[in-house]
Amino acid sequence: MAGNSFGSTFRITSFGESHGEAVGVVIDGCPPGIEISVEEIQAEIDRRRTGQSDLTTPRAEKDIIHILSGYFESRTTGTPVALVAYNEDVRSEDYLNMKDKYRPSHADFTYDAKYGFRDWRGSGRASARETLARVAAGAIAQKYLKQQGIEVVSSVQSVGDIEAELDVENMTRSDVEANEVRCADQEKAQEMATLIREVRDDDDSIGGVIQTVVRGVPAGIGDPVFDKLEADLAKAMLSINATKGFEIGSGFSGTKMRGSQHNDEFTEENGKIKVVSNNAGGVIGGISSGADVVFRTAFKPVSTIGKKQNTVTTEGELTELEAEGRHDPCVLPRAVPIVDAMTAIVIMDHILRQKTIS
Amino acid sequence: MAGNSFGSTFRITSFGESHGEAVGVVIDGCPPGIEISVEEIQAEIDRRRTGQSDLTTPRAEKDIIHILSGYFESRTTGTPVALVAYNEDVRSEDYLNMKDKYRPSHADFTYDAKYGFRDWRGSGRASARETLARVAAGAIAQKYLKQQGIEVVSSVQSVGDIEAELDVENMTRSDVEANEVRCADQEKAQEMATLIREVRDDDDSIGGVIQTVVRGVPAGIGDPVFDKLEADLAKAMLSINATKGFEIGSGFSGTKMRGSQHNDEFTEENGKIKVVSNNAGGVIGGISSGADVVFRTAFKPVSTIGKKQNTVTTEGELTELEAEGRHDPCVLPRAVPIVDAMTAIVIMDHILRQKTIS
Amino acid sequence: MAGNSFGSTFRITSFGESHGEAVGVVIDGCPPGIEISVEEIQAEIDRRRTGQSDLTTPRAEKDIIHILSGYFESRTTGTPVALVAYNEDVRSEDYLNMKDKYRPSHADFTYDAKYGFRDWRGSGRASARETLARVAAGAIAQKYLKQQGIEVVSSVQSVGDIEAELDVENMTRSDVEANEVRCADQEKAQEMATLIREVRDDDDSIGGVIQTVVRGVPAGIGDPVFDKLEADLAKAMLSINATKGFEIGSGFSGTKMRGSQHNDEFTEENGKIKVVSNNAGGVIGGISSGADVVFRTAFKPVSTIGKKQNTVTTEGELTELEAEGRHDPCVLPRAVPIVDAMTAIVIMDHILRQKTIS
Amino acid sequence: MAGNSFGSTFRITSFGESHGEAVGVVIDGCPPGIEISVEEIQAEIDRRRTGQSDLTTPRAEKDIIHILSGYFESRTTGTPVALVAYNEDVRSEDYLNMKDKYRPSHADFTYDAKYGFRDWRGSGRASARETLARVAAGAIAQKYLKQQGIEVVSSVQSVGDIEAELDVENMTRSDVEANEVRCADQEKAQEMATLIREVRDDDDSIGGVIQTVVRGVPAGIGDPVFDKLEADLAKAMLSINATKGFEIGSGFSGTKMRGSQHNDEFTEENGKIKVVSNNAGGVIGGISSGADVVFRTAFKPVSTIGKKQNTVTTEGELTELEAEGRHDPCVLPRAVPIVDAMTAIVIMDHILRQKTIS
Repeated sequence: MAGNSFGSTFRITSFGESHGEAVGVVIDGCPPGIEISVEEIQAEIDRRRTGQSDLTTPRAEKDIIHILSGYFESRTTGTPVALVAYNEDVRSEDYLNMKDKYRPSHADFTYDAKYGFRDWRGSGRASARETLARVAAGAIAQKYLKQQGIEVVSSVQSVGDIEAELDVENMTRSDVEANEVRCADQEKAQEMATLIREVRDDDDSIGGVIQTVVRGVPAGIGDPVFDKLEADLAKAMLSINATKGFEIGSGFSGTKMRGSQHNDEFTEENGKIKVVSNNAGGVIGGISSGADVVFRTAFKPVSTIGKKQNTVTTEGELTELEAEGRHDPCVLPRAVPIVDAMTAIVIMDHILRQKTIS
Repeated sequence: MAGNSFGSTFRITSFGESHGEAVGVVIDGCPPGIEISVEEIQAEIDRRRTGQSDLTTPRAEKDIIHILSGYFESRTTGTPVALVAYNEDVRSEDYLNMKDKYRPSHADFTYDAKYGFRDWRGSGRASARETLARVAAGAIAQKYLKQQGIEVVSSVQSVGDIEAELDVENMTRSDVEANEVRCADQEKAQEMATLIREVRDDDDSIGGVIQTVVRGVPAGIGDPVFDKLEADLAKAMLSINATKGFEIGSGFSGTKMRGSQHNDEFTEENGKIKVVSNNAGGVIGGISSGADVVFRTAFKPVSTIGKKQNTVTTEGELTELEAEGRHDPCVLPRAVPIVDAMTAIVIMDHILRQKTIS
Repeated sequence: MAGNSFGSTFRITSFGESHGEAVGVVIDGCPPGIEISVEEIQAEIDRRRTGQSDLTTPRAEKDIIHILSGYFESRTTGTPVALVAYNEDVRSEDYLNMKDKYRPSHADFTYDAKYGFRDWRGSGRASARETLARVAAGAIAQKYLKQQGIEVVSSVQSVGDIEAELDVENMTRSDVEANEVRCADQEKAQEMATLIREVRDDDDSIGGVIQTVVRGVPAGIGDPVFDKLEADLAKAMLSINATKGFEIGSGFSGTKMRGSQHNDEFTEENGKIKVVSNNAGGVIGGISSGADVVFRTAFKPVSTIGKKQNTVTTEGELTELEAEGRHDPCVLPRAVPIVDAMTAIVIMDHILRQKTIS
Repeated sequence: MAGNSFGSTFRITSFGESHGEAVGVVIDGCPPGIEISVEEIQAEIDRRRTGQSDLTTPRAEKDIIHILSGYFESRTTGTPVALVAYNEDVRSEDYLNMKDKYRPSHADFTYDAKYGFRDWRGSGRASARETLARVAAGAIAQKYLKQQGIEVVSSVQSVGDIEAELDVENMTRSDVEANEVRCADQEKAQEMATLIREVRDDDDSIGGVIQTVVRGVPAGIGDPVFDKLEADLAKAMLSINATKGFEIGSGFSGTKMRGSQHNDEFTEENGKIKVVSNNAGGVIGGISSGADVVFRTAFKPVSTIGKKQNTVTTEGELTELEAEGRHDPCVLPRAVPIVDAMTAIVIMDHILRQKTIS
């Protein structure tokens, strides 16, 4: 069983290589009657697009999304929705010098180890361009969730050592979109931008953390014991290129607390049971509690850098490499919409799943 | 689709409540011909058992594992392997005072929200007793992996603020089993034990981190783009009770590094390509690199504590609760075999999956 | 991926060998709140039990069903329901002479070809005893369906050349249970019984056909293009031991008709659209039409017979075999509850699936 | 969970409507390194194409297949293979008169019942045009199987009352392609063609049966107890438009036989165990025996006919309908490549699955 599908009820299947004909996604299990325009999907795609600012790679894909199926008179029909973007600004020659040299910490080597050979053009399937498919599917999920009063907001939390102070409860999509870094803390965003430019000018790269909040999730979704909501979110996040960690609620820092501090007491408000604090991050025992779902995802620095590095050829001979091609010095700004998309897909999937038992 | 199965080729289905008749697991896709004795499985179960030391709950389950199927003449047969442990030392009356009061940060409330009602005896399905099923299945996976030269070693890394210094490359299962905390750093283990006893005597609980290394994983396993090896490990870990975080390789700390520091250069040794450093934690682009797979899992403090807490009744009325029942002040020592088991299940599953494409 | 699970939302996983410890089933995705007693499940098991009459094998299993999990205060809880029957009247010595000789048309040979070896006692996993697990799960499905006004009635349609005249629209479970053959045509049932006794006395076996009707299925269930209702029913039926064919509605005879004869015209009755005829067998384009779902399943004669046959040893040497052991001369009477069970499982699964899109 | 994916290891996901942008398929789990040209895929597509002869609908789609991903330097890469054909000769206006009238025995009504509304143009998702996706995926499966020495040959067995005499053991793809009916019995093929023309000229349609043989399947594939080889074949066949029945080996006629006649004795030939007869149709207990896999699939007459019929409007009012549009009077000739494709997909899937246990 291969690994290019995700979700059990709202199920996406991703396909495509960076420099092949197209990247795309098929959504099976999309309920009928969701009203959405191609422009609404395109808007999410555009958030992930390259060339938005000087912080991102200059590869200038237009990334026009096309709806091939499952769509009629402005609504989803309940049959599979296929979304595709054809590859256009392809410069495979940039990759010729990396065809026979393994980039350190890049998937060139492991793809060869797994499949015996690989489409080396533009990183092939391992390219972050694949995430375009997720963003397209996520746009539909976000539209569906919005109609249920659920919204997903992700913001850059840190870049390198620069840590934002995020008002997680109140930050909005507009706060995030107000700057090129996609950090809801406008001041820190400027510092982050400066750091990213420094790193870029140094032919290097830098990592960071994205924080996500999902508001309006009803109590009761998530499927123990394996498909706990946090487990599926963790998988979703760790399936995104360059991620190395995930924590929900108190996360790693919560491990230092006592139960008496960490426990979220229950109280009652307007006839509804709710938690006073939210160290749990909105999920208890794998099931949503009705509180905001809050989690963080760690992104390592991009592996493809212009700086000279030691490596080996595909034949195992020692060599050096200065990567060409057009790459982001920091993936965080463009990763925000990907995190939003994968989050929405997980939440929507579990909302649909819950319908089968209630 | 419910969530009680895990894995795609080596696929386990868990069942059972804490105070029901039994907990157990069915493994479908277990290859034929694995030689294993019931005692070998029991040995892993015993590592997870209660009452091993004064650091764990005094509930004294014997947890005898029975093989019901898929096993003949000391070998697995290729048909489903059902493993079951009958519940014995059940004292449901301990839970009577929690039947109508929601324990803070416990799944009582969310199970009611999801299913409409719940088996409240001994935490029902949300009890960590469920993980016994995972440990049983994991014992078979570990035996299989051992025959392929792969070993999984997990150790407690921290309890509260006490951080062990682990020699991740060399630590052994014996180092871990040498003390009641299951921490391969023998000195810190003593400090941790002292802390856990303090916390216990204070009717409180404490969290911590477990670090895991898997040695001998061949390059090439893991299934991008969604079933990346780290994604499935993250899901496996976040599906364990009380976990709040997962990081692989450099994890969250790697987000502060530059690409030029973080990248693991390739070199050649005896005709084999390998990495010089291992910030990746053994996985590049979702596929194993042949280096050790190294990750950490965060556990929050146990929610059920003896200390008085504010909460609500199932009817939503404010009340107070001092939990009775027999609970661990710190889950870490008993969580080590669970982490080992889930890790082995993920690795074995991906090794079998790789056979379909090679 | 192994093949011991069936269904996508109401999903059963079967385990167990004929002469191992137990046979059983885990149901994942069973909705909470289904009221059912263990006696109701036992009643279905008893319909499948051996030794009911002199038409069936004298192996006298009591087949006591136990509910191990997912059940509290007489209701399903929404967590996995494990049902198990321990093997008791086991006489493995009867199989010693077949341990090293392949029974013609029996799975001994193919199990060896697949797995390398097999549990030869009592046919192991290939024994029809496995279907007990399906009947147990099907009892819950039938209870659920009944509450939705849906009923499944299967009747023996033919044994050898003897063909019943079934009033498919009106036949009831009581009609079927009124004779030992389980044929709703009481007269033909007697002829069938006579034939089965003749065949039995001749150390031989005989096949037949079962016809099934499902009444009350709402229009709209079934999931094109692959999980069409008839496709899942066909798979369910062909997964039962000894089946060789499936047809729905007009089936093979419909291939001889013109479209103008075969088409079922639509009409209107009390504001509801319905079909005038039902050559479709209740399913159009893979989706239920609201009409009765009607299909037939073909069972070959049982392969294990007392008559002398030519065969080979497991080493490939020519030999002869007169099978011992206790076997049914005709599986049809005991297959009726199995067909009912698998039918109910398919229908319930699709009803739950439909909830995710409406 | 929706139903547009099929297979577990070689897994296809189909998408597309008849008059939407495109129909296509994504194959996940396709092994790397299969050499195949786009022309080889196109050749299979062309067998299914309309307008091949006057026996088929005059809709003259060119059906050009495009490979969008998972393909590099003439080989599959192991990543998802997306194949797509854009819809061109679309005349949606032909369907305007059926937009508000339910065609008898057509899925218009049931799609509305299921999804609430539908893309009515050209039958939308229920159009047989969807099977193009299957044929494309099946072309790759057939290429893979050929390299393993396995071939699939399907032939029309009957049209209406005209029954061919097929030499199942020896019939070839060339025999089948030698006439426009795709029947390996050249004489009967002429009679069938005559009948189809008569039926066509009468604005009516006619059904028939296709027989399939798969040669070279190794003993040991198929996954009991639910994913038996015949169960997956039955599902595959019943998922094809207009099918109403499936039988393997002796099928329905075998139900009239005694076990002593029906059993296939084992013998030995050149050190290999094999069956003397093949009433089983190549599958025993759900697992291939090494003998030819032989089965038959029943197709009803096409529902869309020019003849006047009674029906209702979407509002439930009684009306009459004379269907326009361009339709096949008999689907059999064009269904042969679809049956070949689905058969190859099932066999390939099970061959890959078998690798995980051996």
